[in-house]
Amino acid sequence: MTSKSIAVLLSGTALSLSLVASTGAYAKEGMFTPDQLPEIAKDLKKTGLKLNPNQLTDLTKFPMGAVISLGGCTASFVSKTGLVVTNHHCARGSVQFNSTEENNYLEDGFLAASYSDELPAAPGSRIYVTKQVDDVTDKVLANLTDGMSGEERYAAIDSARKTLVAACEETAGYRCQVSSFYGGLQFKLIKRLEIKDVRIAYSPADAVGKYGGDIDNWMWPRHTGDFAFYRAYVAPDGASAEFSKDNVPYEPDHTLKVSAAGLDDGDFVMVAGYPGRTSRYARLAEVKNTFEWRYPTFQTLLKDWISTIEKTAPEGSDARIKYESRLAGLNNYMKNLGGQMEGARRVGLVERRAEREAALNSWVKSNAPDAGYSEAITALDALTEESAFADRQSYWYGNATRPQLLGVARRLYRLAKEKEKPNAERESGYQDRDMTFFKQRFNAIDRRYSADVDKAEWMLFLKGYLDQPKDQRVAALDNALMLSDTTDMSVLSTRLDRYYSQTKLNDSKTRLSLMNASVSELEASQDPFMKLAVALYETGRAQEKASKDRSGRNYVLKPKYMEAIIAWQKSQNFTAYPDANSTLRVSYGNVLGGSPKDGMIYEPFTRLEGITEKDTGIDPFNSPQAQLDKINAKDYGPYVLKSLKTVPVNFLSDLDSTGGNSGSATLNAKGQLVGLLFDGTIESVNSDWDFDPKTTRSIHVDSRYMLWVMEKVDGAKHLIDEMDIVRR
Amino acid sequence: MTSKSIAVLLSGTALSLSLVASTGAYAKEGMFTPDQLPEIAKDLKKTGLKLNPNQLTDLTKFPMGAVISLGGCTASFVSKTGLVVTNHHCARGSVQFNSTEENNYLEDGFLAASYSDELPAAPGSRIYVTKQVDDVTDKVLANLTDGMSGEERYAAIDSARKTLVAACEETAGYRCQVSSFYGGLQFKLIKRLEIKDVRIAYSPADAVGKYGGDIDNWMWPRHTGDFAFYRAYVAPDGASAEFSKDNVPYEPDHTLKVSAAGLDDGDFVMVAGYPGRTSRYARLAEVKNTFEWRYPTFQTLLKDWISTIEKTAPEGSDARIKYESRLAGLNNYMKNLGGQMEGARRVGLVERRAEREAALNSWVKSNAPDAGYSEAITALDALTEESAFADRQSYWYGNATRPQLLGVARRLYRLAKEKEKPNAERESGYQDRDMTFFKQRFNAIDRRYSADVDKAEWMLFLKGYLDQPKDQRVAALDNALMLSDTTDMSVLSTRLDRYYSQTKLNDSKTRLSLMNASVSELEASQDPFMKLAVALYETGRAQEKASKDRSGRNYVLKPKYMEAIIAWQKSQNFTAYPDANSTLRVSYGNVLGGSPKDGMIYEPFTRLEGITEKDTGIDPFNSPQAQLDKINAKDYGPYVLKSLKTVPVNFLSDLDSTGGNSGSATLNAKGQLVGLLFDGTIESVNSDWDFDPKTTRSIHVDSRYMLWVMEKVDGAKHLIDEMDIVRR
Repeated sequence: MTSKSIAVLLSGTALSLSLVASTGAYAKEGMFTPDQLPEIAKDLKKTGLKLNPNQLTDLTKFPMGAVISLGGCTASFVSKTGLVVTNHHCARGSVQFNSTEENNYLEDGFLAASYSDELPAAPGSRIYVTKQVDDVTDKVLANLTDGMSGEERYAAIDSARKTLVAACEETAGYRCQVSSFYGGLQFKLIKRLEIKDVRIAYSPADAVGKYGGDIDNWMWPRHTGDFAFYRAYVAPDGASAEFSKDNVPYEPDHTLKVSAAGLDDGDFVMVAGYPGRTSRYARLAEVKNTFEWRYPTFQTLLKDWISTIEKTAPEGSDARIKYESRLAGLNNYMKNLGGQMEGARRVGLVERRAEREAALNSWVKSNAPDAGYSEAITALDALTEESAFADRQSYWYGNATRPQLLGVARRLYRLAKEKEKPNAERESGYQDRDMTFFKQRFNAIDRRYSADVDKAEWMLFLKGYLDQPKDQRVAALDNALMLSDTTDMSVLSTRLDRYYSQTKLNDSKTRLSLMNASVSELEASQDPFMKLAVALYETGRAQEKASKDRSGRNYVLKPKYMEAIIAWQKSQNFTAYPDANSTLRVSYGNVLGGSPKDGMIYEPFTRLEGITEKDTGIDPFNSPQAQLDKINAKDYGPYVLKSLKTVPVNFLSDLDSTGGNSGSATLNAKGQLVGLLFDGTIESVNSDWDFDPKTTRSIHVDSRYMLWVMEKVDGAKHLIDEMDIVRR
Repeated sequence: MTSKSIAVLLSGTALSLSLVASTGAYAKEGMFTPDQLPEIAKDLKKTGLKLNPNQLTDLTKFPMGAVISLGGCTASFVSKTGLVVTNHHCARGSVQFNSTEENNYLEDGFLAASYSDELPAAPGSRIYVTKQVDDVTDKVLANLTDGMSGEERYAAIDSARKTLVAACEETAGYRCQVSSFYGGLQFKLIKRLEIKDVRIAYSPADAVGKYGGDIDNWMWPRHTGDFAFYRAYVAPDGASAEFSKDNVPYEPDHTLKVSAAGLDDGDFVMVAGYPGRTSRYARLAEVKNTFEWRYPTFQTLLKDWISTIEKTAPEGSDARIKYESRLAGLNNYMKNLGGQMEGARRVGLVERRAEREAALNSWVKSNAPDAGYSEAITALDALTEESAFADRQSYWYGNATRPQLLGVARRLYRLAKEKEKPNAERESGYQDRDMTFFKQRFNAIDRRYSADVDKAEWMLFLKGYLDQPKDQRVAALDNALMLSDTTDMSVLSTRLDRYYSQTKLNDSKTRLSLMNASVSELEASQDPFMKLAVALYETGRAQEKASKDRSGRNYVLKPKYMEAIIAWQKSQNFTAYPDANSTLRVSYGNVLGGSPKDGMIYEPFTRLEGITEKDTGIDPFNSPQAQLDKINAKDYGPYVLKSLKTVPVNFLSDLDSTGGNSGSATLNAKGQLVGLLFDGTIESVNSDWDFDPKTTRSIHVDSRYMLWVMEKVDGAKHLIDEMDIVRR
């Protein structure tokens, strides 16, 4: 560690300590929409940005034009011939899709020697290039009147959004959405080019790209080569097209240069990406419901759920292969929940939120007593309590209706119902534009379903359902499954067997063919899951109706609350930003180690030698021998960080990120790619609720390590040559 | 962290990296006997010692005269009226012994307001004050001849040692031992005053003294107040005496001053204590046997053993209370084994040992070809292989004979056999001088024995015994328990029931009364465990005979090997020191953080605020509220470390320590007590086999935290006043 880094670290620590005591204006907190950047130009420059902040607001110009979405992950164009870099974990599904016992690309990695060797990504893989963003708030809110019920308001907004999307998507090859910001204070229409022919160009082996696996997940120190390359293809005329041999590499308007010179401790970093969801403005009632009831309750269920799957699908079984990904997801969520709850305890989340709300109230009282904020906040709190109550009431019913084929039946029945309406009026998810993904979801079930496991899960959920207070039970479900206070679990188990032995929904052809069935045809079905779906339909509609009504009322109150927040924070010279909503955001900060707890310090960089140190030869710490040999030989090439005397592998920064940011290009002060964001530390996960400047750190893979692996380990020199590499 | 500490840290790291590649002369490695200190005076001074190293060699002068042994732990005199400071975990058994439901001293802590309130320590508690150390090598080896068999040699040495001990113990109130150094190259007669009236004066609550519990055990960062105070009492005439109300506080010749000024990062520290056992000169064959067979084999058994106890003695049961301490011990050992094996992997223990042996061989060849070293080493290696083989052969038999009451029966039968000989000729452990502890051990069984658990353990061990290769089975055991290749475990289980229903050895009175039984009386006993003990006696004797024969041969070879090591290390300007053997040693170094792995740094100090940060309110992170309140109020008193801006709790140093060092006073450059050593980091535990200068760190509780707790939390001002506190 250099003395410079210590100075940064110390100032960081001192800063956070003083800020923790202050009101919410924390350094480096913020997932800003690009149009906000001129507002915070001064801090961007102070933090180290060399580009003009105004340059970052135009999504069709450099560098924002190079930042793309994979839907769930972020990526970037890095060559004029459509090369796309993202995280290994974002592309891994595509590698897995192409892997066979003979060609185990997960284990061996995959590198296409030329365009023609590139393999199609997993079904449904898309690249979205944001082309236009328009504020459509006025249009969305145009048809609202004061006297509307919540449900009416929701319907009016929903209808306006659908109309805007439909008009936007009249241009073929584009996908549009209307996103809500600040809980409905602002709506933006986002138009994205949808590239449908995505191919995998290069992915390092799991033992590089997933090094450390679930054990190192959320952890620092980290040594993961979490990067991979896709290539975008379009029709010869440049239009978006499904996979075809005739397609040609897409030529993006803008690409990122890739830095081989990289960063040092304290340097400016910036990330543009698509963070998924944060709850930083959640009211105390929601925070309490989440941390005092929902998370601990779900944590208990998760534990049982995981052991149920492990027991029913023993290691080595076919069923285990099908549930591997669900197990990984549940374990990941379990670790995340643990981190969130520990983080909430550490920062005193509930107390802090109460204090913040008191501070806002007092500011409103003194500074904007007549703006209607107080009234809106009071009503919002009542609505939040109402939502929390509904959440608790429906929790076990929600779980008890999780069986996969019940889900299929319910979606099919709903689809039949929706199809009775004109396309434009159908519920989101059931419009013509949704059918490709609808079918893909049905197809995917074959790879993820085992009757034994599904039934064991159902028994677990039904046990919870029966154990809950009686008034939370749902008559429709009780009647259908003959559930009562005296239900014997072994009798119930026998009763459920019929569902699995008699259903035909386990067959993908049946599922797909039923997409054309009418309501009455489905109502006449003797399939037990379909009969259950029909029996539960009205309950589901009633819950949905109530939920939409709450959403509609929320559309009045939340924007007013956010208006108060914005004004309050502005009065403290802090620019409020909207909660994450899967739209393009920019966050920035510095390369920075940290102190996750008293007595322990995270260094900002990890080293190649740390791989050797960790390596046990046993998955997930089983680096390819070629890599160990190169490290051992100190064959660093031109990728050394001088202050480290070796090649850096991963680094930490204090910039703000969350799930969905995965794959985001990490840019230096000049907008060059210096790494990819791929994770946050476990001490950071609670920042989704309350940004903690002391412990929040994002984890990036260093571009020098990426290039080093490509050059020294995997021989991907032709891809390096294809990119515009900045050597110093 | 100050820039000074970083400089130290960096130099430390650089140093170790260069030294790892060298030959064994590592910085701060070394558990030196006090008489070696003048030899290393230069380095002691360079490291920061202000005292004259010669002053440390006299065990009857200051400061060594103040350092005492508790048998298993180290302690120090800190007042003229016999106040003794040691670790909380060394005195906890005594606190537990005095705890009742009404007066739960474990939970609430214990503080005697005056002498008369002090409570007797647990039975068998002793304080040993080393009074004299003499080299008796010549006397021990006097009667040896070249032609002796191993067994004869062992007997001759054993007899000489017993004679020396008996003569030494003729002075009443003293306990003597002859300790072997360098595997028998040197023998020393150590004479210690044995103080038998030990009382507990003050112990903080478990929530301070054991803060972090098993979770934080071996871990850094640490926030444990691992300190407690005993007081030594003697008869009014100053002689050692059993507990009596008439006894008076012992007046030690020397006491340590206690520093309230404490240390800063990089400062000199020194520890005098009684480290138990290290294996740094073990030959490769032993290292391989241990790390490739014994540890992994035992780790597997430990896992099953722990779950067997947990299942048979469910939480909340009476049996669980009895096995709590065994469970803690097994879990502790499990964690330690994991650390040792991970450490061995990390440093490449086996390869390093092979390299070291090759380097020694080549030095011998070039520099001392005619000293007989090569021959001795070759023979030692053959003997080591022989011992390893015996170890593996008897492993499951050893486990299969673990049942507690079988152990009692075997000890009783052996005692009867030994009693047929004159006292002086009896086996160690069966002489008159051993009977106090013999009885105590028998008494203690009542608090640690449950037939159900013992039987479940036995079944587990017998399963392993039956699963092993047939040639490792022991006929005497097979016959007694009717074990065969086709033994059915449920039939065996029924067969074992008789042992537990028919034995009388579960009664402590029976056990004690049988200490006077004759051989023939015991042979006539119908107690099933006694019958089994008698049946196994000859097997045990044969194993012991073979083991003694190997020890006898080892007495020829190991000293020669150590001679070579000493000469070789001397040629590299390094002073070799003997492996730890529970005798007084001095190690020294500096306050120093570390980097346990790439990307992570341990700070040298933890802070009061770290307690608050860790505190969940749930055991073992349930600090007393009084402490949290004082921390919250920043009521630091005069105990602040300026560079830290708060009171330090624990600190790290790079000095060499192992189990048995617990409770050792940590001394500053002037010999003042600045803390107590109480643990090592998990990354250090492998240093028992191979000192790793990069990761080895000892963990100390800071004297400022001790004094702060005493003054601010527990109101033990009268004890502070009793000590000689150095304020700056």
